[in-house]
Amino acid sequence: MLTGKEVAALIDHTLLKPTATAADIASLCREAGEHGFFSVCVNPCYVKIAADYLQGSRVKVCTVVGFPLGANTTEQKKREAAEAVEKGASEVDMVLNLGAVKAGDWEYVKRDIQAVVAATAGQALVKVILETGLLEPEEITRASLTAGEAGAHFVKTSTGFLGSGATVEAVSLMREAVGEELGVKASGGIRTLAQLQEMVKAGATRIGSSSGVAIMAEVAGSR
Amino acid sequence: MLTGKEVAALIDHTLLKPTATAADIASLCREAGEHGFFSVCVNPCYVKIAADYLQGSRVKVCTVVGFPLGANTTEQKKREAAEAVEKGASEVDMVLNLGAVKAGDWEYVKRDIQAVVAATAGQALVKVILETGLLEPEEITRASLTAGEAGAHFVKTSTGFLGSGATVEAVSLMREAVGEELGVKASGGIRTLAQLQEMVKAGATRIGSSSGVAIMAEVAGSR
Repeated sequence: MLTGKEVAALIDHTLLKPTATAADIASLCREAGEHGFFSVCVNPCYVKIAADYLQGSRVKVCTVVGFPLGANTTEQKKREAAEAVEKGASEVDMVLNLGAVKAGDWEYVKRDIQAVVAATAGQALVKVILETGLLEPEEITRASLTAGEAGAHFVKTSTGFLGSGATVEAVSLMREAVGEELGVKASGGIRTLAQLQEMVKAGATRIGSSSGVAIMAEVAGSR
Repeated sequence: MLTGKEVAALIDHTLLKPTATAADIASLCREAGEHGFFSVCVNPCYVKIAADYLQGSRVKVCTVVGFPLGANTTEQKKREAAEAVEKGASEVDMVLNLGAVKAGDWEYVKRDIQAVVAATAGQALVKVILETGLLEPEEITRASLTAGEAGAHFVKTSTGFLGSGATVEAVSLMREAVGEELGVKASGGIRTLAQLQEMVKAGATRIGSSSGVAIMAEVAGSR
């Protein structure tokens, strides 16, 4: 069984809804420090605010690239990633090009990811969001392998904006594909301790959730 | 009553779902030419493909910036807009910064829009997406006024990805705010000729829809 500290250290404390204000981001950062979450995950316009708030803290700043559709150009994804790192992000969660996946253009998918990895210049960990709710099982496997070949550090299930969120099946497929080489982040719809534990059992090594504080309250209540 | 030609000339023929392939975009462009739609509205990764396909045609290429959350940085919105124009877009539909709207930081909202207008360097028409389903009536009015002050050419209701789509109430508020100075684009959930006509009656001068072909079939059937 995971300790409270271990649970907290798995969580990217996430606030990506577009109506979130700078004040909401400050609260998110405060909560992350209090609970010992791994990171805060915020939209690009708030990276600097979060990095300033968390200066000197162990909590990392995670942001998103090409989010949530993955359908901007590779050139823009590169620039977004580079700007995020420059402003203080040490993790970037990018959405792969879903149209290219559906067209079977795996070379495009790979180059798109490689460009983002290169743009971070070793200064950030790159997670590739597959949006598994929109993919077939064989696409999930191939996308996971492609992310690894392209030099990414993690594969991640979902944006939380489209299709279904994380499922045990998707996480298992992803873990099977990447072996122990890459991390697996489960995200989208994870709101309870039981869900978090299921995802970890299926192979997740990071959890993206907007319900981190509620999950920690559950941990505290169950002791 | 609008003629078929008039109906078609109001429509931005739209395909923004992230799983759309290059082949889907080619079909979209072909349909737009056949029906005489005003433009095709595609994700940034397909601007060049659409512009190449439509070379010599009257159909314009429209794309999106900061889409659909509006929560990337102003710097990125600028670059996205500039790249879109360079690749052949003559209309860009940008999402304003919704967090800044909610925080009442209207200076930020304005500068964010101004930056995109400047980046297009007079080569494209800029529409500002308000995502009216997430806004209060007074925010819709103020955002519309701010878009005008910032030099945008149109205000647009919705992304189609968040909150409700276009409503008659929102379109009326927007038209009231901008007078005759700006265009008003209704988008999100418009699937029938009756809906299109309602929006036009409320003040819309452009319609974004993924159902353009079905709407034209209705027009043909009703004659």
